Amino acid sequence: MTAPMRNRQIVYAKRPVGEPDLGCFDLVEGDIGRPGPGQALIRNDYVSVDPYIRMRMEAKDSYAPVMKIGEIMVGRTVGQVVESNIPDFKTGDWVVGRLGWQDYSIAAAADLQKIDINAAPPTAYLGSLGSTGITAWVGLMHFGQPKAGETVVVSAASGAVGSVVGQLARRRGCRAVGIAGGKAKCAIVTREFGFDACVDYKSPDFASELAAAVPKGIDVYFDNVAGPILDTVLPLLNNFARVPLCGLVSQYNATEPYRIANYREVFNRRVTIRGFVLSDHRDLWPAATEELAAAYAAGQLKYRETITDGLENAPQAFIDMLRGGNIGKQLVRIRT
Amino acid sequence: MTAPMRNRQIVYAKRPVGEPDLGCFDLVEGDIGRPGPGQALIRNDYVSVDPYIRMRMEAKDSYAPVMKIGEIMVGRTVGQVVESNIPDFKTGDWVVGRLGWQDYSIAAAADLQKIDINAAPPTAYLGSLGSTGITAWVGLMHFGQPKAGETVVVSAASGAVGSVVGQLARRRGCRAVGIAGGKAKCAIVTREFGFDACVDYKSPDFASELAAAVPKGIDVYFDNVAGPILDTVLPLLNNFARVPLCGLVSQYNATEPYRIANYREVFNRRVTIRGFVLSDHRDLWPAATEELAAAYAAGQLKYRETITDGLENAPQAFIDMLRGGNIGKQLVRIRT
Repeated sequence: MTAPMRNRQIVYAKRPVGEPDLGCFDLVEGDIGRPGPGQALIRNDYVSVDPYIRMRMEAKDSYAPVMKIGEIMVGRTVGQVVESNIPDFKTGDWVVGRLGWQDYSIAAAADLQKIDINAAPPTAYLGSLGSTGITAWVGLMHFGQPKAGETVVVSAASGAVGSVVGQLARRRGCRAVGIAGGKAKCAIVTREFGFDACVDYKSPDFASELAAAVPKGIDVYFDNVAGPILDTVLPLLNNFARVPLCGLVSQYNATEPYRIANYREVFNRRVTIRGFVLSDHRDLWPAATEELAAAYAAGQLKYRETITDGLENAPQAFIDMLRGGNIGKQLVRIRT
Repeated sequence: MTAPMRNRQIVYAKRPVGEPDLGCFDLVEGDIGRPGPGQALIRNDYVSVDPYIRMRMEAKDSYAPVMKIGEIMVGRTVGQVVESNIPDFKTGDWVVGRLGWQDYSIAAAADLQKIDINAAPPTAYLGSLGSTGITAWVGLMHFGQPKAGETVVVSAASGAVGSVVGQLARRRGCRAVGIAGGKAKCAIVTREFGFDACVDYKSPDFASELAAAVPKGIDVYFDNVAGPILDTVLPLLNNFARVPLCGLVSQYNATEPYRIANYREVFNRRVTIRGFVLSDHRDLWPAATEELAAAYAAGQLKYRETITDGLENAPQAFIDMLRGGNIGKQLVRIRT
């Protein structure tokens, strides 16, 4: 691997209508630059391409302001300091940050977090031990409030967040049931991630299969997808069920929103639905990080990564991930 | 007024499809009966006909088991003890209870609550000072958590619960905005109940008029109706808004449910939606009752009643109430 002399960046080129295509992205090159006072230069090794980025590509603000055309694509990265004017960061330090889809970034201390690559591989800090895992923890533990013996269902269960949710639920003594697309993903969810059951939402008998998988009803539904799967889940909720709403991946590429039919169950079952975004809950990060690290050290936090090679292929990786092509965390290795 | 020698009852005769008609109810007569040990005989003077009863008429259990055909119609009543085998209750005591659509009821102490008719008229204990007011308090204060300066919006604002919600919100220093059907109801909401504004959902410009009435967005939406009004409200919610879901009156007579289009806003705005039913929250009744009585004594809790005469007219009163024919609490004076 040879570090390039120029900095490649993927920038936002065109707003998608429905599914994004490659024309929504441009690869541009520029100078690497030098860090100013209080800054460090980071060489990014991996960038994480996540569903939330699709929301930032809308014409209208969602939970966060939209990206402007020409702006560098947002995304969390892991890499190493190559030059530093920050006392606490030295050359060779491994860091994660939201540094975008590019070879190099210049960042201040507040944008960087050091990681310990002796405890886990660098990419784990973009996934189960990083913001992905913390998202799962905050949604499940803080908003889901699972109690031992309860049933926790999570959609996109083979994905980065979903796979952590089920494993954390099992640690709490809950029955963990995943929902995923296809038999192959379901097999991974139960065999590798240790869920008690996983139901294929593409099955023609999805509704009855889900009902059979939750004989005592559903106490927590950790929702990553919304859409028709939510409508199938709602009638199976128990009284006082909690529904942390982490994302709506089934809806990001939709030009017309799916319309929820079974909203009445929210009243009937006295359900709490709570939309949440990780960045609102920084106070919970230490507790989340502590439990995730303990689970990982105990062998109770398995994860999968789908790695695409080459920064230039990040747009395709992103498009494929939105179609459900990945298992676990979708990452791009920036240089091969 | 002469008390009858026989007990008239309205019983549940036929499940409605869509809007109930008079054929859904039967009037039957029987003996008044005598109270056994630990029981009292109550002569009911008023019965409250409320939207939730429509849910109990479904073929399928909702938040509570359905009524069986032939069963007496459920409903809260206010009346007087006429014969008592309960030490704490004596002849002439005024009581409220869930004693059904009938002239006389036999009840145990646990089913009865004494009221003070010197503090307020008997019917107030079916409305603002009773379960209606407590419902408003629990939804607004416990689940809505309004803070001074915030904007509280309530649907069915001229109804029994809605009118209390706005007045309690004003006491907390909030901007109270009602949604009601028609200019006449809106005028009552602002002039009599003292809301800051009220918007007519039947107006062709409802969405823009609601937006104009909430220049700082919506922090609490107390929902009594769901349906298309909820879809209009969702994009106006502020970050971290709370949506106590008290009922879905727009949906009770619907044969096909209205499908919610703007669910994505629950994520974008990190909203909490919470379905609730009063009977789950008996621990909150004392605090609610205390504040409601204080507000009433201070002249800060106005209410309206729509009174229909004659138990035999209770079914029509119920049908009209579901169509929005009432203002404030819909009651039936059992005998005239």
